[in-house]
Amino acid sequence: MLTPLQTDLASVVEGVNLVWVLTVTFLIFFMHAGFAMLEAGQVRAKNVANQLTKNLLTWSIGVIVFFLLGAAVSSIVAAFTGGPATTISGAFMSLYAPEASATTAWVDWLFGAVFAMTAATIVSGAVAGRARLRAYLTYTILIAGVIYPVVVGFTWGGGFLSALGFHDFAGGMIVHGMGGIAGLTAAWIIGPRMDRFKPDGTANVIPGHSITFAVLGTLILAFGWYGFNVGTAAAPLAYADGGVSLGSFAYVGRVALVTTLGMAAGAIGAGGVAMYKTGKVDTLYVANGVLAGLVGITAIANDIVWPGALVVGLLAGAQLPVVFEFVEKRLQIDDVCAVFPVHGSAGVLGTLLYPVFAVPLWHDGASFVSLAVPQVIGVGVIAIWTFVATAVVFGGFRAVGQVRVSSDHEREGLDTAEHGVDTYPEFGSPDADTGIRTD
Amino acid sequence: MLTPLQTDLASVVEGVNLVWVLTVTFLIFFMHAGFAMLEAGQVRAKNVANQLTKNLLTWSIGVIVFFLLGAAVSSIVAAFTGGPATTISGAFMSLYAPEASATTAWVDWLFGAVFAMTAATIVSGAVAGRARLRAYLTYTILIAGVIYPVVVGFTWGGGFLSALGFHDFAGGMIVHGMGGIAGLTAAWIIGPRMDRFKPDGTANVIPGHSITFAVLGTLILAFGWYGFNVGTAAAPLAYADGGVSLGSFAYVGRVALVTTLGMAAGAIGAGGVAMYKTGKVDTLYVANGVLAGLVGITAIANDIVWPGALVVGLLAGAQLPVVFEFVEKRLQIDDVCAVFPVHGSAGVLGTLLYPVFAVPLWHDGASFVSLAVPQVIGVGVIAIWTFVATAVVFGGFRAVGQVRVSSDHEREGLDTAEHGVDTYPEFGSPDADTGIRTD
Amino acid sequence: MLTPLQTDLASVVEGVNLVWVLTVTFLIFFMHAGFAMLEAGQVRAKNVANQLTKNLLTWSIGVIVFFLLGAAVSSIVAAFTGGPATTISGAFMSLYAPEASATTAWVDWLFGAVFAMTAATIVSGAVAGRARLRAYLTYTILIAGVIYPVVVGFTWGGGFLSALGFHDFAGGMIVHGMGGIAGLTAAWIIGPRMDRFKPDGTANVIPGHSITFAVLGTLILAFGWYGFNVGTAAAPLAYADGGVSLGSFAYVGRVALVTTLGMAAGAIGAGGVAMYKTGKVDTLYVANGVLAGLVGITAIANDIVWPGALVVGLLAGAQLPVVFEFVEKRLQIDDVCAVFPVHGSAGVLGTLLYPVFAVPLWHDGASFVSLAVPQVIGVGVIAIWTFVATAVVFGGFRAVGQVRVSSDHEREGLDTAEHGVDTYPEFGSPDADTGIRTD
Repeated sequence: MLTPLQTDLASVVEGVNLVWVLTVTFLIFFMHAGFAMLEAGQVRAKNVANQLTKNLLTWSIGVIVFFLLGAAVSSIVAAFTGGPATTISGAFMSLYAPEASATTAWVDWLFGAVFAMTAATIVSGAVAGRARLRAYLTYTILIAGVIYPVVVGFTWGGGFLSALGFHDFAGGMIVHGMGGIAGLTAAWIIGPRMDRFKPDGTANVIPGHSITFAVLGTLILAFGWYGFNVGTAAAPLAYADGGVSLGSFAYVGRVALVTTLGMAAGAIGAGGVAMYKTGKVDTLYVANGVLAGLVGITAIANDIVWPGALVVGLLAGAQLPVVFEFVEKRLQIDDVCAVFPVHGSAGVLGTLLYPVFAVPLWHDGASFVSLAVPQVIGVGVIAIWTFVATAVVFGGFRAVGQVRVSSDHEREGLDTAEHGVDTYPEFGSPDADTGIRTD
Repeated sequence: MLTPLQTDLASVVEGVNLVWVLTVTFLIFFMHAGFAMLEAGQVRAKNVANQLTKNLLTWSIGVIVFFLLGAAVSSIVAAFTGGPATTISGAFMSLYAPEASATTAWVDWLFGAVFAMTAATIVSGAVAGRARLRAYLTYTILIAGVIYPVVVGFTWGGGFLSALGFHDFAGGMIVHGMGGIAGLTAAWIIGPRMDRFKPDGTANVIPGHSITFAVLGTLILAFGWYGFNVGTAAAPLAYADGGVSLGSFAYVGRVALVTTLGMAAGAIGAGGVAMYKTGKVDTLYVANGVLAGLVGITAIANDIVWPGALVVGLLAGAQLPVVFEFVEKRLQIDDVCAVFPVHGSAGVLGTLLYPVFAVPLWHDGASFVSLAVPQVIGVGVIAIWTFVATAVVFGGFRAVGQVRVSSDHEREGLDTAEHGVDTYPEFGSPDADTGIRTD
Repeated sequence: MLTPLQTDLASVVEGVNLVWVLTVTFLIFFMHAGFAMLEAGQVRAKNVANQLTKNLLTWSIGVIVFFLLGAAVSSIVAAFTGGPATTISGAFMSLYAPEASATTAWVDWLFGAVFAMTAATIVSGAVAGRARLRAYLTYTILIAGVIYPVVVGFTWGGGFLSALGFHDFAGGMIVHGMGGIAGLTAAWIIGPRMDRFKPDGTANVIPGHSITFAVLGTLILAFGWYGFNVGTAAAPLAYADGGVSLGSFAYVGRVALVTTLGMAAGAIGAGGVAMYKTGKVDTLYVANGVLAGLVGITAIANDIVWPGALVVGLLAGAQLPVVFEFVEKRLQIDDVCAVFPVHGSAGVLGTLLYPVFAVPLWHDGASFVSLAVPQVIGVGVIAIWTFVATAVVFGGFRAVGQVRVSSDHEREGLDTAEHGVDTYPEFGSPDADTGIRTD
């Protein structure tokens, strides 16, 4: 039986942990503003409102689906693959009508929900400028209700990848790798924007309409990312055996340091390679390099030695211009906002590099192979599942001719065609009628 | 007498509660950036700097007035209407020179101040593009010093509406309903922008200059709203009788969940109705639907069953296009940024729907009528007071011909005329001189 | 020996303090988004991407340098000037491989780093539109690695200014005053943008490209500033002698109040003087007045009587238009984003006004002179060091002809020339080729 004092301390611990989880949840939610601005800045002026609408609806529709369905799906998938046992009705009712502590159940759900919505919203940047709203929103419902929850069931929920020892601290693979792969798959199936590639197959650059908004989005994302990574050290204090100790805050300094060094090195890596290739420091590469660096260390921020953060960040940044060019020129996939190099390949890279810089390897004598194998398997499983599920959904829509807007609408711009608005009625000259440039 | 241990625990509780209140206070303050962007995006390019200046000055002037006068007024009003007793000088001195705990008194004041300034700043969106700065700022002084504090005195301060059982958790009516009604009243008295209505009385749409800024503002507001609502669960821990327990965090999970579902449903409700009416998913309706959903559940987020959040959010969103059209076409009031449908009618709706979804009704057997009557009275009293006070102020300015700028200045744009600046000197072509379009 | 209970309480205190420090650190980091937007808005459209790139790289390069070098330099400088003893290797190893508590060491470092990066990034606003990227980034490395750390060593690190009693709570002089003086020095050495001054020496106003972005930046900065000032009350709880008490939160209410009143009064001061001089309420002066008010009270927010915040804020705002004009017309220095009047002179002013409004003077009978002398010496030492160090670096670059871009590149815009991008490819008409206006 707890003494009054133990009750007091347990309450204090619960209160402090809730304060922290809520604060970082809000920060992660704010990343939607970051994605909205980053993507809006990287699309043509005639498609800005479409991009913004998708972002708003991804959150709005997705979070309801994740409450009504997704969270339960991940518990059920976890239970079926070796995680904590639950019944199907129990999985739903533990959220719909939590018995013990509604406070904790619902706050924990929201903390999970903002990660889920991050994965979902990444996709919209890849398919900008031509995806049909209906197809996109259907995919949003499925990623929030099934596709992402399955991945969580396998991993954080306690399923087989978790049992295997797969290490993904804050979603470098589970959230970002997955989102990036889903985006690439969707962009591949939908096909490029018109005039994105010339008849001879060479690429035609279609610049975004505002670097300022793109950089603003980058910095909002970096701000929210501190919540994403550092916040994943979700329980500052632990209460056990009648005593209080630092809980996951025992390693919060490492997470904060690694996150900071990783993002900084990412900007330098991407900017440096861009400079090497063109002689100029491309602003968008530097900005996206910040994000690639962050993605790169997200899976491993709690458990690598800090020099590893510099290396992983540099590599995650450096691969960005290279992979972007590969996707564009070799694969001829029109990944508008570079979501694959920023979230996909950077996430995969960082997750796989865990054994190289892991604290257990450097300080505790763990074997490289025992650390590496689960990472390879985890990345493989998540990548394949994401690719297949996404391909089925968008492939289905393509089969019935519903995956992209008509070419008239694409030329005119999705803002007018799908939303009946002009984002900037007083600026610029709509080029829809000239017939000269249609990008 | 407190034992040393009790002193320790009381200090811990005070520290944790201060950390939380300060954090959410900063989030709520940040809503000013949200309002600034939301409103700037919804006005013509020639009036953007004017709108931004009003936002900056609303905060700057208003918060000083609320410190020097407003907070004391609400204590005094509360005392005169049945709340905690105070002397007039005591009401001022408890803030000017707090005896016991300056820390708590001043932090609590700031927490109240950011709510007050939210109410004040809502008005500027309704009167955009033609209100004279002097009239607007005079109103700001009065709303910060008297009009809003009177409402707080009646309610949160402990006055007669509080005694009656009026339930408004985080200001759905006290802050947003009031701001929306004040905005509508002011817009009605000032009259529409020139050319907003054609000679035959039909409406002429004057689109805002940037949907991107409007959506950015929306997302900043939603971020800050988590502080607004969840933060109103202001004391994570409670200390009483020598023991610690979860304080208002006992229901923080409910607030977080309801806030999330309400905002999401609001976007769907507004977007859905817009789609039903025009066949297209209007971006601004979706964005403002997020806000209407948030307003709708703000009064009741701590005490309704969660399915109610979906219903209230949907309705708050769905009424937005309908009420906006009613205000525009029937009332012929030029509410530029739709502040009445977003803050006013949504706030009234949510506050009145409390008895339908109240936890006490569903779980504790409270009677519908006993829950409903205080809501109706509270909404009525606040609406009437706000309408009358606002009408007197702006009516007075209109009577002496000082309520709006000259038609030359309005045509030219308020940026040049009132502030001597051009917001975008390198973009667009000012249409002031063409005489063809003057909106 | 600690009893189990004492261990519990010590853990609680550590956890709560970490939650707070991390939260405010994230807020201060977000100020980079504020600076980016504020500066971007105040430069020409052709130089926006350059400004954004500088902001991104200031953080990215600077924070790594501050980790590898700067933090150790400040410990060493402190030790050499009377502060806590350390060896050179110890100064580095305490950060590279902290023995006792990596959590605290690394979190504390990050908290210091966001202040350092604020000082560094201020400079970019002064030298906008013509500084060569290489020169600027070299200076960034030096300010992050040496110039700023020396100042911290003298003061917060425990060096001789600290021993003297120099009072700078949150960096009014150490961060902002220093950044403003560095910016002015750099702008002076680099020389004005072409056509900034006419052949007869009169000034030619070159307006920024977007007041909206500038005001957004202002409000983001004000939001982050609550972290900057209030967060500097860094330890909510204190644990000593086996007991818990409010730590620096004992005065957090004062900091919060003074910060709020100071920023509000700053807007009024700057807007009022602008109105007095031109008859119009200039939007940018109001916005920058918010910041000048904040800078003004930053050094002293924890220890002045609150009416002093109104006076200091008003004066800090009021001096802004006056000092800006002096710098422009008398000194003929092209301080593009007004960083000297906003950060430099406002920081100096507030720091020097400490003795006038100090709590020790008004409540504890401290002597004015004993409070004033350390302030004068501290301001003088920091100003001279900053001026000399900055002049040497930029003077060196100027001596070898590497301090500014070629006049062709300047005319064309730095975005194209240095970064190969067009920030707004669909808006505006680049005026680089017309030869008529080159600003």
